[in-house]
Amino acid sequence: MDPTDVAGEPQYRTLLAVDVSEAKAGQRVRLAGWVARRRDQGGVYFFDLRDSSGLVQVVVDPAEVPAARDLRMEYCISVEGIIRPRPEGMANPDLITGRVELAADDLRVLSKSEPLPFVLDARVEPEERLRLEYRFLDLRRPRMRANLRARSRAAAAMRDTLNDRDFLEVETPTLIRSTPEGARDMLVPSRLRAGSFYALPQSPQLFKQLLMVGGVDRYYQIARCYRDEDFRSDRQLEFTQLDVEGAFWGREGVFDTFEAVVAAVVAELRGSSLVVPFPRMTYADALLRYGTDKPDVRFGMEIRDLGDLFEGTEFRAFSAVLDDGGVVRGFNAGARDLSRSGLDALVDRAKALGARGLVSGAVDPEGSWHSSAAKFLSADEVAGLTAALDGSPGDLLLLVADSARVTAEVLGQLRLDLGKPEGHDDLSFLWVIDFPVFDELEGGHLVPSHHPFTSPVDVKEMRERPREAISKAYDLVLNGSELGSGSVRIHDPEVQREVFEILGISAEEAERRFGWFVKALRYGTPPHAGFAMGIDRLLAILQHETSIRDVIPFPKTQTGTDPMTGSPTEVDPDQLAELGISLSEAAAATDDG
Amino acid sequence: MDPTDVAGEPQYRTLLAVDVSEAKAGQRVRLAGWVARRRDQGGVYFFDLRDSSGLVQVVVDPAEVPAARDLRMEYCISVEGIIRPRPEGMANPDLITGRVELAADDLRVLSKSEPLPFVLDARVEPEERLRLEYRFLDLRRPRMRANLRARSRAAAAMRDTLNDRDFLEVETPTLIRSTPEGARDMLVPSRLRAGSFYALPQSPQLFKQLLMVGGVDRYYQIARCYRDEDFRSDRQLEFTQLDVEGAFWGREGVFDTFEAVVAAVVAELRGSSLVVPFPRMTYADALLRYGTDKPDVRFGMEIRDLGDLFEGTEFRAFSAVLDDGGVVRGFNAGARDLSRSGLDALVDRAKALGARGLVSGAVDPEGSWHSSAAKFLSADEVAGLTAALDGSPGDLLLLVADSARVTAEVLGQLRLDLGKPEGHDDLSFLWVIDFPVFDELEGGHLVPSHHPFTSPVDVKEMRERPREAISKAYDLVLNGSELGSGSVRIHDPEVQREVFEILGISAEEAERRFGWFVKALRYGTPPHAGFAMGIDRLLAILQHETSIRDVIPFPKTQTGTDPMTGSPTEVDPDQLAELGISLSEAAAATDDG
Repeated sequence: MDPTDVAGEPQYRTLLAVDVSEAKAGQRVRLAGWVARRRDQGGVYFFDLRDSSGLVQVVVDPAEVPAARDLRMEYCISVEGIIRPRPEGMANPDLITGRVELAADDLRVLSKSEPLPFVLDARVEPEERLRLEYRFLDLRRPRMRANLRARSRAAAAMRDTLNDRDFLEVETPTLIRSTPEGARDMLVPSRLRAGSFYALPQSPQLFKQLLMVGGVDRYYQIARCYRDEDFRSDRQLEFTQLDVEGAFWGREGVFDTFEAVVAAVVAELRGSSLVVPFPRMTYADALLRYGTDKPDVRFGMEIRDLGDLFEGTEFRAFSAVLDDGGVVRGFNAGARDLSRSGLDALVDRAKALGARGLVSGAVDPEGSWHSSAAKFLSADEVAGLTAALDGSPGDLLLLVADSARVTAEVLGQLRLDLGKPEGHDDLSFLWVIDFPVFDELEGGHLVPSHHPFTSPVDVKEMRERPREAISKAYDLVLNGSELGSGSVRIHDPEVQREVFEILGISAEEAERRFGWFVKALRYGTPPHAGFAMGIDRLLAILQHETSIRDVIPFPKTQTGTDPMTGSPTEVDPDQLAELGISLSEAAAATDDG
Repeated sequence: MDPTDVAGEPQYRTLLAVDVSEAKAGQRVRLAGWVARRRDQGGVYFFDLRDSSGLVQVVVDPAEVPAARDLRMEYCISVEGIIRPRPEGMANPDLITGRVELAADDLRVLSKSEPLPFVLDARVEPEERLRLEYRFLDLRRPRMRANLRARSRAAAAMRDTLNDRDFLEVETPTLIRSTPEGARDMLVPSRLRAGSFYALPQSPQLFKQLLMVGGVDRYYQIARCYRDEDFRSDRQLEFTQLDVEGAFWGREGVFDTFEAVVAAVVAELRGSSLVVPFPRMTYADALLRYGTDKPDVRFGMEIRDLGDLFEGTEFRAFSAVLDDGGVVRGFNAGARDLSRSGLDALVDRAKALGARGLVSGAVDPEGSWHSSAAKFLSADEVAGLTAALDGSPGDLLLLVADSARVTAEVLGQLRLDLGKPEGHDDLSFLWVIDFPVFDELEGGHLVPSHHPFTSPVDVKEMRERPREAISKAYDLVLNGSELGSGSVRIHDPEVQREVFEILGISAEEAERRFGWFVKALRYGTPPHAGFAMGIDRLLAILQHETSIRDVIPFPKTQTGTDPMTGSPTEVDPDQLAELGISLSEAAAATDDG
């Protein structure tokens, strides 16, 4: 018996699994989905039917419905029958539909399945490479289904919040001119102008600024961006960001808006409300107290500077560093009973992170310090140390003496090693503000701390003391991950010129690289500010995933390949010729490899 | 006097222009925007301040506010003052804020403007090349602002409709494997696998089908797509489509959903409600009656087949064609008083369109036919002709005798030439259904009418009579423009294999080109169907624009260039070397050109 036709089409279902309930007992319904589990019990077959909404138990007598005999895992079927309560004591409280079952009297196999490469079971985690090769099966797993759904709902929450605030969603182009940071651009050869190239955008930065010049008051876009970086642990060649910009706007407006956006997403996915406004911390403070510009403030263990305390110390390991312009800092890792080898491991870790050494020891019951360094310190210094680090008996105190940069990196990482909470049940958002305008590379060369379109707080300060100058840039940090960054932009072409000059970009080079953009600044550009937030990372944290690949429908591996489709691939040389390019010899030679 | 600071930031405005009203008369407010028009009247300056919401007239006494003296067109300013009613008789009824003005006592130039390359005035239309070069100024014009806003609202209406129906928004990748129609793929060289390439998607087709395999019940995405075609009148290398797919779904579900989506957009942008369901017409009927598969049904002038009427005619021009398997068809172009030269122009047009000739003539007051062909026709044939074409005295009847293909093309185009309404005040949506599975190229080779993943209505028919077989494909047409197309897809790998076979694709070639996709069909693929609609074209029609470039924020020219940024550009050979490619000699040679 075929399912009822509707306007000449088969009717595959009349109901979703989740809507099968006791209230509908006695009703005849049709469901469609996949065979998720099967068992044979006293000649009667039981199986779970899974659709996008959930699971329903189906009972079928193979004598009555012979097609049931051939069912295998993940066969796609349409099944009709009567909803009825499960027999006494057979209810499954873990299942929304667990008090009922479908007594099927008609079953149609819509599509068979080959044996599966892995089991679709929440309790078994297949190897990731296999999951990516069979992503179309992986996505059937409840966890991945939940992640896809969460991503869709998060995007809706973001858009609703911004639409309510009169932001316009504007699509900026993705075949653009190669940008300043050109080396990381992905290129697209042009056919109509063979030998020339478009670039894929690393962000819509310059186009959104042009929208501000163009009188768009409030802009947003959930934008696909591209960055050809060497893959670090958790990056993708293409990624998605929520991109926002506003005219006649400044940092406070950006913060208020993004707090509302993030709160809406958290309310939607976690069902909890965030405390706004988020706390703020200066970049300088973050580096000093947490050793990083993206502090995880869910836990304490704050780093303290001990330079004043050890000024004039007899301990050579400290005094030499301090005399050399370095710092002595430390933090209280709390009460922990580390063995000798545990402490040695900490020292090794500190050295691997770049420190010359690590001074460690627990606070004695008497308030003194049980450390190999203690004998070089005065009683006052030890007392000062335990006071400065709030040491109670049993607390492990860790100290590093080195350059400010190395000390921050080492203590910041040790703090995370020892204190970072598992998972992301708690959410600690933080604005990091007052970034420097420029970072100094080894050799003294200046590069933009954010990007060269970031406004300095004070142009005169930037001109006179570029290494100390503070910018109007800001980052949003969640549980120690940078979610995004933004700034008040430069809207004065003269300030833009000065920034290029300080960066050592000649007028000619600036014209060649940024001329088309700077030209726009000369036509009544409004003051403007904006922000961009990575959606992949936010979603991963909110969904308790450790990898962003688990919140991206079809991600690539860490080497940029797709095991499912085999991309990237070689292409026809004729097609390349049309684009005015050919494989270079080096590539041709490695083709065999 | 500086504007009040808010949390250390300048406050640029307290109100938008559109909110300046009589009800606020007497209030002190601050506005920010651009100087849109200026006049000096008895020593007092008047100018219009324009922001994203509208215009407000500002009055300022330069003696009191000296900065007003230096104002030029499109200077970006912040201005403070008191709202007051305009003097008796000075109200401007064309302006929302036309009954009031701002008496300014403080004015701050935020940013100056160079003299403009064109006037930002709705009454003047600058040359398009210049508009694109200065798009950041062009976007300030009210018409472009309205188009951007409409696009944003349209996207929101689409998403709201689909979210309400439990569709999931899913992002599919844009760095993908080169697809079957590879020659039109835009390529992206891979750096980590130098010498290999990603392709940009022509559509998310295969990925959305994989989502169905993956158990996503209802999917949508507003997706950026790429097609490297030679530019026809109005195409872009990148374009945006609303992409939808559903499992356990068929044509009726697609139609119902898309009618709701389109109705929501029309309600939002036009404020009018559409009659749903939309009418439907078979492909065969459309070709016969309108000479095209995208008929403009806002007007009649339907084409009639006259083969039966002229069967056995003495008129050689008709009988020879009919004997040869051709057709005689015509339509009534209505009452029009064409001169001899007007008729000659029609004949020339028909010949230019590929016809061997055009038989034309007006109906006499006596009901006979005033045509040079009339003398070859019997009285019965003439009477039959005027009856078949509903001819009233004065009506021009146009006939073509040729192959069915040429006749349809010529009459279809003449019908548009003579009857197509100006503009798009009326909206006539139409589903065209029952497309053939295959189109036949010259030489008999078969190609997919839509794409090779489209389900035939009857597999047996497709196998036995592939040239006649009907598919489950459909198009949506608006006012003679194809908005989009879709189909019920093949979900049975065996049917997919047969389609490849009929297309002359060997098993090896099918495996190489589509293997990764067909593999997924073998794991319990649900029946599924979908649709994709171009957003650019829909927006252009709804906004009364003739070019899609006017509804795209930053479009490219017809040769794929961007006059604003100069892209595409040459790039550093070192960067190409990293990607394993180099410029081919042909391209290098044309570099100078």
